[in-house]
Amino acid sequence: MVKVNENYLKLKAGYLFPEIAKRVSAYTQSKSISDIIKLGIGDVTEPLPRACRYAMSNALNEMGTKEGFKGYGPEQGYAWLREKISVNDFLSRGCQIAAEEIFVSDGSKCDSSNILDILGDDNLIAVTDPVYPVYVDSNVMTGRTGEPLQNGTYKGLIYLAINENNNFLPEIPKNKVDIIYLCFPNNPTGSTITKQELTKWVEYAQRNKSLILFDAAYEAFIQDEDIPHSIYEIDGARNCAIEFRSFSKNAGFTGVRCAYTVIPKNLFGINSKGDKFDLWSLWNRRQCTKFNGVSYIVQRGAEAVYSSQGKKEIRILIDFYMENAKIMKNKLKTAGFTVYGGDNAPYVWIKVPDEMSSWDFFDYLLEKANVVGTPGSGFGVAGEGYFRLSAFNSRANVINAMERIINI
Amino acid sequence: MVKVNENYLKLKAGYLFPEIAKRVSAYTQSKSISDIIKLGIGDVTEPLPRACRYAMSNALNEMGTKEGFKGYGPEQGYAWLREKISVNDFLSRGCQIAAEEIFVSDGSKCDSSNILDILGDDNLIAVTDPVYPVYVDSNVMTGRTGEPLQNGTYKGLIYLAINENNNFLPEIPKNKVDIIYLCFPNNPTGSTITKQELTKWVEYAQRNKSLILFDAAYEAFIQDEDIPHSIYEIDGARNCAIEFRSFSKNAGFTGVRCAYTVIPKNLFGINSKGDKFDLWSLWNRRQCTKFNGVSYIVQRGAEAVYSSQGKKEIRILIDFYMENAKIMKNKLKTAGFTVYGGDNAPYVWIKVPDEMSSWDFFDYLLEKANVVGTPGSGFGVAGEGYFRLSAFNSRANVINAMERIINI
Repeated sequence: MVKVNENYLKLKAGYLFPEIAKRVSAYTQSKSISDIIKLGIGDVTEPLPRACRYAMSNALNEMGTKEGFKGYGPEQGYAWLREKISVNDFLSRGCQIAAEEIFVSDGSKCDSSNILDILGDDNLIAVTDPVYPVYVDSNVMTGRTGEPLQNGTYKGLIYLAINENNNFLPEIPKNKVDIIYLCFPNNPTGSTITKQELTKWVEYAQRNKSLILFDAAYEAFIQDEDIPHSIYEIDGARNCAIEFRSFSKNAGFTGVRCAYTVIPKNLFGINSKGDKFDLWSLWNRRQCTKFNGVSYIVQRGAEAVYSSQGKKEIRILIDFYMENAKIMKNKLKTAGFTVYGGDNAPYVWIKVPDEMSSWDFFDYLLEKANVVGTPGSGFGVAGEGYFRLSAFNSRANVINAMERIINI
Repeated sequence: MVKVNENYLKLKAGYLFPEIAKRVSAYTQSKSISDIIKLGIGDVTEPLPRACRYAMSNALNEMGTKEGFKGYGPEQGYAWLREKISVNDFLSRGCQIAAEEIFVSDGSKCDSSNILDILGDDNLIAVTDPVYPVYVDSNVMTGRTGEPLQNGTYKGLIYLAINENNNFLPEIPKNKVDIIYLCFPNNPTGSTITKQELTKWVEYAQRNKSLILFDAAYEAFIQDEDIPHSIYEIDGARNCAIEFRSFSKNAGFTGVRCAYTVIPKNLFGINSKGDKFDLWSLWNRRQCTKFNGVSYIVQRGAEAVYSSQGKKEIRILIDFYMENAKIMKNKLKTAGFTVYGGDNAPYVWIKVPDEMSSWDFFDYLLEKANVVGTPGSGFGVAGEGYFRLSAFNSRANVINAMERIINI
């Protein structure tokens, strides 16, 4: 009989968000409650920018003509989009990233899990804890971990705790690690990293010839000048880092699907003989064989993100969500909570009152305030004792949710 | 230093279509020739159906409103699209495929290579020869083959030749094979399989508990009544087959990106202890972790394929390309060529004149007729001596190309 990939059997059964949905549904049904406010999942809520819709509408019209019709596009993305990304997201910030080094895709979730395709099984891998579950699960699925341990971690992975003791900055490992996942502004804690701190990581990676997988999906929410938007703002990062970016959170593309990955041309790995191979060529081959490019219409929408009208609209969207975060943070502080994040990220990270677990607090907010958030423990062992609220919602819902929490 | 996936280093350097592009470009530049007619790559050329554009335009407008905005959709695809697929592509043909068993994706190339994620490394795998290169390369990349041999095949894979001696139908293996890739109507040969012949494969798979990966991307081109559109038209296929389908070739979605994969719920694999696990759950977990669903706008476009207006327009598209194929076949026969395919598939498969290789014939057509096709040897060892022409082009170009070939 056909054999299955046994690594999948190591995965913990209950994924975080389905478990949340189950608890919410059980509660609302038993109590006939309908006005639940959901600040759980990190999904945007505001309409798609007009500039993007306009560009997509034009692209759609083109597709209706013999002359304008587009079939298969380049697997790497259209040159005009890669150029715009290079100029606006990198060259403008002093990062020497060429258009050719940018691979357009349909999502950062795909890219950050598919990247393992081109990397060996025998790399030592580190993740932060708490962490975006996709990094861990994609490693489990491809056999890069052992069995799960009692506490929910997996054997073989190195976990770098981020919590209030280290100001939510992972400690640099004492030993050599081959691959490190870093996500800043951080999901789920909302914390950030300064250029100075990120420089230490780049230096570590250069010293140890490690690879940093840098997830900058939330860079658009950065407000402070000294926080890097890209790891390539740090000297030497071109030699040690891949960066993931997305149009999901800045332009509200979670339902439209467009993202990109940067693989600098001077990034190398070795085979078992120690011969060097550049990762750009491997990823290019991967994408050409296993991917067929992003919808032409969607790519035209992404291009419009860089138009002056697009930039204006995105500024308004970001300001809107960040004002939500500010309101949440202030109100929660007033209510006596210790709160982190929310200044340069759309997530606030609440310290759960002493006697409660993350899931206790989840039930408490659900039942007392009819507000849904995400238990920190869902993101990893070190997330226990914390709780994530997302700023992605309408202003009315955010204010209402905060009032309810204050009035418990 | 970070280790690369060494399996990538086994891949043959020159991929087929870039090599073709290189030769065409070298020739046209040296001779200053501009009116090359390309019948090489299998990409559609006619405008996107109006029904699809209309639906997508409406979806785009919805996305511009607070009420209509859609963020993350279900990773498996929207229920309304899966329902339409189930009813129109399966139930209508007597195949008991439920909406839940359909996973919407952004392309069959992705699905047919990603499917290996959930399958063990220790399966014995068979492909036809010639073959769609993605099946082979995705196996090489994931370490399911050995090194390439002198003749271009890979150690560890079983190759089932399809040629005029067996009427382009692979012989059923004498021994047990765990996984078999079948593509009918076939790319590249344009051949088809009858229900009777396909039944033998389903019986073989049931007897040996093998898994058939059935690629039906070209089913819309079938003209004859007795040729199955889906493997699920064969009794027992629900127990042994996964099917890949695409909107690329029927509705011209090569640049729009939408496809789907069918995983029946009673399809099982085993782990090393012999315990059974259903493949639906493994694929569902794979998609939830490594994929974020298809663009909402694109899914609305795919849904319109099943509207009465959509069906009408697609019938016209298919008829148009099949009329091209008919013209090509007739003209080539008149010119004295032996020609296969083209009756139920958009590809004609030419027997190359005796003294020539596939690449010789490529150069010959390029230089004498300024027509580009695809050498059969590019699809595998057993493709040597054949040549593929695609029916995807304007009527004028097709007629012109045939006149040029006849007049060499």
